[in-house]
Amino acid sequence: MSAWLGPEPANWWDVVDEALREDIGTGDLTAVCFGEDEELEWIIEAQADGVACGVGIAEYIFGSYNSDSDPSDVKAMVTDGSEVRRGTVVLKGQGLARRVLSLERTALNFLMHLSGVATLTRQFVDRVSDTSARIVDTRKTLPGLRALQKYAVRCGGGFNHRMGLYDAAMIKDNHIKACGDIAEAVRRVKAVSSHLARIEVECEDLDQVRQAVQAGADVILLDNMDPFMMREAVRRFGKQVAFEASGGISLETVHGVAQTGVSYISVGALTHSAPALPYHLEVL
Amino acid sequence: MSAWLGPEPANWWDVVDEALREDIGTGDLTAVCFGEDEELEWIIEAQADGVACGVGIAEYIFGSYNSDSDPSDVKAMVTDGSEVRRGTVVLKGQGLARRVLSLERTALNFLMHLSGVATLTRQFVDRVSDTSARIVDTRKTLPGLRALQKYAVRCGGGFNHRMGLYDAAMIKDNHIKACGDIAEAVRRVKAVSSHLARIEVECEDLDQVRQAVQAGADVILLDNMDPFMMREAVRRFGKQVAFEASGGISLETVHGVAQTGVSYISVGALTHSAPALPYHLEVL
Amino acid sequence: MSAWLGPEPANWWDVVDEALREDIGTGDLTAVCFGEDEELEWIIEAQADGVACGVGIAEYIFGSYNSDSDPSDVKAMVTDGSEVRRGTVVLKGQGLARRVLSLERTALNFLMHLSGVATLTRQFVDRVSDTSARIVDTRKTLPGLRALQKYAVRCGGGFNHRMGLYDAAMIKDNHIKACGDIAEAVRRVKAVSSHLARIEVECEDLDQVRQAVQAGADVILLDNMDPFMMREAVRRFGKQVAFEASGGISLETVHGVAQTGVSYISVGALTHSAPALPYHLEVL
Amino acid sequence: MSAWLGPEPANWWDVVDEALREDIGTGDLTAVCFGEDEELEWIIEAQADGVACGVGIAEYIFGSYNSDSDPSDVKAMVTDGSEVRRGTVVLKGQGLARRVLSLERTALNFLMHLSGVATLTRQFVDRVSDTSARIVDTRKTLPGLRALQKYAVRCGGGFNHRMGLYDAAMIKDNHIKACGDIAEAVRRVKAVSSHLARIEVECEDLDQVRQAVQAGADVILLDNMDPFMMREAVRRFGKQVAFEASGGISLETVHGVAQTGVSYISVGALTHSAPALPYHLEVL
Amino acid sequence: MSAWLGPEPANWWDVVDEALREDIGTGDLTAVCFGEDEELEWIIEAQADGVACGVGIAEYIFGSYNSDSDPSDVKAMVTDGSEVRRGTVVLKGQGLARRVLSLERTALNFLMHLSGVATLTRQFVDRVSDTSARIVDTRKTLPGLRALQKYAVRCGGGFNHRMGLYDAAMIKDNHIKACGDIAEAVRRVKAVSSHLARIEVECEDLDQVRQAVQAGADVILLDNMDPFMMREAVRRFGKQVAFEASGGISLETVHGVAQTGVSYISVGALTHSAPALPYHLEVL
Amino acid sequence: MSAWLGPEPANWWDVVDEALREDIGTGDLTAVCFGEDEELEWIIEAQADGVACGVGIAEYIFGSYNSDSDPSDVKAMVTDGSEVRRGTVVLKGQGLARRVLSLERTALNFLMHLSGVATLTRQFVDRVSDTSARIVDTRKTLPGLRALQKYAVRCGGGFNHRMGLYDAAMIKDNHIKACGDIAEAVRRVKAVSSHLARIEVECEDLDQVRQAVQAGADVILLDNMDPFMMREAVRRFGKQVAFEASGGISLETVHGVAQTGVSYISVGALTHSAPALPYHLEVL
Repeated sequence: MSAWLGPEPANWWDVVDEALREDIGTGDLTAVCFGEDEELEWIIEAQADGVACGVGIAEYIFGSYNSDSDPSDVKAMVTDGSEVRRGTVVLKGQGLARRVLSLERTALNFLMHLSGVATLTRQFVDRVSDTSARIVDTRKTLPGLRALQKYAVRCGGGFNHRMGLYDAAMIKDNHIKACGDIAEAVRRVKAVSSHLARIEVECEDLDQVRQAVQAGADVILLDNMDPFMMREAVRRFGKQVAFEASGGISLETVHGVAQTGVSYISVGALTHSAPALPYHLEVL
Repeated sequence: MSAWLGPEPANWWDVVDEALREDIGTGDLTAVCFGEDEELEWIIEAQADGVACGVGIAEYIFGSYNSDSDPSDVKAMVTDGSEVRRGTVVLKGQGLARRVLSLERTALNFLMHLSGVATLTRQFVDRVSDTSARIVDTRKTLPGLRALQKYAVRCGGGFNHRMGLYDAAMIKDNHIKACGDIAEAVRRVKAVSSHLARIEVECEDLDQVRQAVQAGADVILLDNMDPFMMREAVRRFGKQVAFEASGGISLETVHGVAQTGVSYISVGALTHSAPALPYHLEVL
Repeated sequence: MSAWLGPEPANWWDVVDEALREDIGTGDLTAVCFGEDEELEWIIEAQADGVACGVGIAEYIFGSYNSDSDPSDVKAMVTDGSEVRRGTVVLKGQGLARRVLSLERTALNFLMHLSGVATLTRQFVDRVSDTSARIVDTRKTLPGLRALQKYAVRCGGGFNHRMGLYDAAMIKDNHIKACGDIAEAVRRVKAVSSHLARIEVECEDLDQVRQAVQAGADVILLDNMDPFMMREAVRRFGKQVAFEASGGISLETVHGVAQTGVSYISVGALTHSAPALPYHLEVL
Repeated sequence: MSAWLGPEPANWWDVVDEALREDIGTGDLTAVCFGEDEELEWIIEAQADGVACGVGIAEYIFGSYNSDSDPSDVKAMVTDGSEVRRGTVVLKGQGLARRVLSLERTALNFLMHLSGVATLTRQFVDRVSDTSARIVDTRKTLPGLRALQKYAVRCGGGFNHRMGLYDAAMIKDNHIKACGDIAEAVRRVKAVSSHLARIEVECEDLDQVRQAVQAGADVILLDNMDPFMMREAVRRFGKQVAFEASGGISLETVHGVAQTGVSYISVGALTHSAPALPYHLEVL
Repeated sequence: MSAWLGPEPANWWDVVDEALREDIGTGDLTAVCFGEDEELEWIIEAQADGVACGVGIAEYIFGSYNSDSDPSDVKAMVTDGSEVRRGTVVLKGQGLARRVLSLERTALNFLMHLSGVATLTRQFVDRVSDTSARIVDTRKTLPGLRALQKYAVRCGGGFNHRMGLYDAAMIKDNHIKACGDIAEAVRRVKAVSSHLARIEVECEDLDQVRQAVQAGADVILLDNMDPFMMREAVRRFGKQVAFEASGGISLETVHGVAQTGVSYISVGALTHSAPALPYHLEVL
Repeated sequence: MSAWLGPEPANWWDVVDEALREDIGTGDLTAVCFGEDEELEWIIEAQADGVACGVGIAEYIFGSYNSDSDPSDVKAMVTDGSEVRRGTVVLKGQGLARRVLSLERTALNFLMHLSGVATLTRQFVDRVSDTSARIVDTRKTLPGLRALQKYAVRCGGGFNHRMGLYDAAMIKDNHIKACGDIAEAVRRVKAVSSHLARIEVECEDLDQVRQAVQAGADVILLDNMDPFMMREAVRRFGKQVAFEASGGISLETVHGVAQTGVSYISVGALTHSAPALPYHLEVL
């Protein structure tokens, strides 16, 4: 069973191999405590309730990394995106003691961080489940981990915003100033972007919203706007364009934002401030 | 001025270049809003109180990345490790508008995360400032970011534990079981590790502490032990060996742990769960 | 002057450095014909009419590659996207003879190929200039060169289709079959893709077009459809959805396709079969 | 069966993995149309007559890339270098639907380009089959693809010229000028190159040819020379040295050149302007 | 059987793959002498007495490198660290003739160099076997090969000094001068290094030794000191601190140094000047 | 002044950057002994007589590596290939103390090893200076260092044999056996190799030499042949073909081999067993 949920980024194992290099470096000094052929059985279990993510990566680490010389068995017990409780076993396996213990920390680091992102996402999603708003991520990701973090957001029930500067355009105040007005900014962007990349315009007031709608924006970002004005924007232009709200939205405030009728609520904290979900590996 | 505080890891710019690749990818679709030669002045300021970290990296991004074709000025206003307040300007510069806006997010992502780690570290350090205990990090780091995160811990006034499996040995329960007893585990490890790498043994009770001391352990880790027993361990063996406490220690509990007399308190949350410190770039 | 036209992909110099490694390898055996300090002046000129592309890359090669030890001057005379004629000088410079001659072939290879792509694109664009159809590229690119080839298409006046599988969804017959019908396919895709990524559906007949429109497709691909049917699709659904035509469209047939009213005409040959535009370097 | 014809370049899969990264990026958005365990059978067939190349690479892509989590079957039906006709099945396989469709385009891109090079080479080879002239490639290759393109030339029945600046010396007019005369240029080159690397001198007239022969050149390049003079050069010096012709030689003119008696005819177009040979993947 | 002795550095196969790229490059020109399916059996045997190292790497090369298309059998006959005699067979295998011959040289180059390091180390170790001194390596290693060379030292019975500048501090004369005195230097270093990284101070005379001991140095390096003074240092301070001797120590002089009572003797020649141990591959 | 002697391999600084990563890793722990802005002047001098090599690399390390934040001056005092004596200053410079001391060891490691190779080569070259024999290297190089080692051989007055399996063919006994005879082996190799790549055949006796000459070999390798037979081979076939001698040739035996009249003498020890030439860095 592959524990991955849906589309995997290309060559994601390069990130994993680099993480193992960081930890193992010139070799695990404590590994010599085990005999060369000593084997052991192990499980990894969650130590808190949340959403699992990174199970497929852990499977690769124990099952495939450097496995030419050290074959090993590993079995994912849940799929990424599954809800876990304190005590849920997410993987189990057996293999050479030296190998298992050298790989443990890196596998747990992926699990803890990605599950942390998925879990926080799920909390936001749950808060707005009585509305049609979608929780989406941002480009405020941790360096080198964007594709995996955005995967974790999907595992938590959230949706991805653009992946980077390259796959959709977001016109902000500085762009507008440089172009003179919103219409010109939209025109310039359409001249270089794919017909499959949508254009979003960040607006500060209802007049800007009106201009953006007229200019042909696909989505309008209401940044740090008060809920009353958001509601008004949706009321006036909601049939012509989709709205996204953003700006310091927390678990406490997200429901109020969702009730304004916006379609998307983007939350930077999903990827820049998610606390880890704890796991540990236990030798049986 | 270089904004780096003390020793830099080798080739750290590879991590930065990769982060820029993640965000810029096949090119910034919105960049065309700016004229080819349009320049602008900018500042980056903190949006909350904390400890700055990543200023040197931001300096590199704006000043050196792809600067063959697009020369640019940048000036660090504070050094990594400085305390900042909401509104403190940490960098300022000027350059081509296209270039500055394309680099903005990645520079902020480094600043926000590393300053977040430094700030959380400082909070722990401040809580124990009336004791001699040092706050240290762990191997529970985010994949690919270990060297930079551990640098951030130092910027926050913390100290580094071992960098990985390769630079010091940590003997845990599974190692002890495999070897029969602590003495044998220590003996095996000494047979492969450098005379400059210390050996730490994780102990669960006072009897194990006694064995570890006799076996020649340099440091003893008291994992999830109650403060009373920690205090007893320090009282009995504190002259022969150094003690480290670990296990779910929070800002609330850290002072009590420090008062037991342990020399080191390791906190995984510094690197696996530090919330970002917000910054933003403002065009003047 | 930077010769680049608009947004550059991240770290494009890695592709250039690798190309230089391919050609120089363990060292240029013929370089010893020149004295160590011998300098020369040179120009690069086009040997046929077309559209220049790769000038910025050539500037980097002669001006920045390995320039720590061998400083060198180079000046771009035209910008990428400029029309050139046989004899137009696109760059000139001076530098160490050994260095210039070792770099010559690689710089020319980039210029010749990228200008070839830009030139072929321009020819297609010119054929449809009396219509509102845009010429767009495909994913039929040469391995490792996609970002640069797509940049060349823009330099030639064309537009980019999606960059890869990751930045927009294209639902084809196999996807439809697997999902049962078009509506279900669109639904599943919307569940994972960004709200800024558009969805395109490939249709074989008018009934499928109708289904795709109802399912909420953003763009409809008419693959290998005869012009009469294309025209009919545009007539019936052109107000609700955009149309793209594709399938073996040549310089001879492109105008007829454009007259059907489709908005986009995608041409694989732009990137998989563009003949090189010749250039040569002349020592003065 | 391995579909590779003869010696493979080292680590060629790095080029392939990078091409997959280009296309798949952060993940195939359309892949979700398929169920997680849905399998399918497929074939790849040529859509025009030509020479197959890249079959071994396609085998790797479908059979080995990311196959830890997604095992897959693939079978090459022809070897690189085989003649194919429109409709010839070159590979067939079965595997997870998501995986096959995500890999399809990249595999086809390699097949189409490399088969294009092999096919164009074969056309040149066929034109001179009644002579003893060999068709050879040049250094006018596409960046990053040299080793694979030169492999494709061999698959098409052509021969490789030097791989780069490093494996043989080619003395051109600028080298000769810098050295004073041909003899000195040859002397300097012999002082650094391996005794197993041959030396070629580019000559413009018969007097230069004479000098090159006397200087000990191994091969003489007649660049853009008219056939009459080529014939004369071969007549006078053909027993002492081998001749290569080059310079804008086309399918129309190659036979005339071959009849002059030169041993090698180098054609840049083989690698810089070969149109793709079309293939498509069909799901059964 | 895995032939590796103890902890392996992370991703060591990257060094191996790069070495294969160096040798095979664009392909083995002589490989065509073998039929495509021709197989052969082979052994690798030592051609001189010494200590084997690199057997695990050779196993990987023949068994796993590019084995998707060319499966192959290989069997290690000894473990790294074993003593071998002229004629000892260290590996045997069978596989495609083309493949085996293309991989031969690189596998032998690893075996010859690493066994050379292990063998020289063993010679030093044997000379001091009647003392308690340990032979340790230095940072005078060959670029890119440090982790493997240090592994070879362990295979030869030696011990590793610090791996690099990052895992332990060594305070030398320039550091002391810059800090004013030894005490201040030790203080500054302790402020940034892990509590698991030891600190060594290089001393030139007994007064410096005294200062270093008082400052809390863990180990003292006696560099180029005469044996009489070494003995005196050990006599006075040997109960408080460990001593390391270094400086041009040869097989001839090492025993005299060991008799002074120092605990560690570091020998740069182990890694910068070890002659290769010869091996050859024989086809049966 | 660039200290490089003749053609440099492409992207050689990648090897240097990796070597710095090996040594500096997560940061130089002892660097904190120096104040942030403390500068110093330094020289590097040879500690024994020999031939310098690696000066250009050391120039890069001190002058360009990570010099964005830490500008530094460095001046090469000799060129690679120069003879040096104990005490000869090869580079001098000034810069930040932290930076200089962190780079010192890696720069010295390159200098010591490459100068060691150049020096040993020069010793062999000097022994045969009264003959016309050239000293050449082999493929018995240290992994990852081939291009630099072969450069060092040229700096020492030696010549390069083929760079790898890819730039020339060497037909050995196993190839001959597989082909049936030498003529067939030569024929097969000519079918894939460039007309600029020479072919060498390894021969064991005079009959094989005769066959190889008839088959059109360019060079004949006499492996481990006794000098009398070598002389005879040269006498009989020396006008038709060049001869290379190899097989355990030492400084003691090389002159006798050279007197047999062979043109090339290949010595594996140049690159697999050259002892380092010592250098040290002195702070002024």
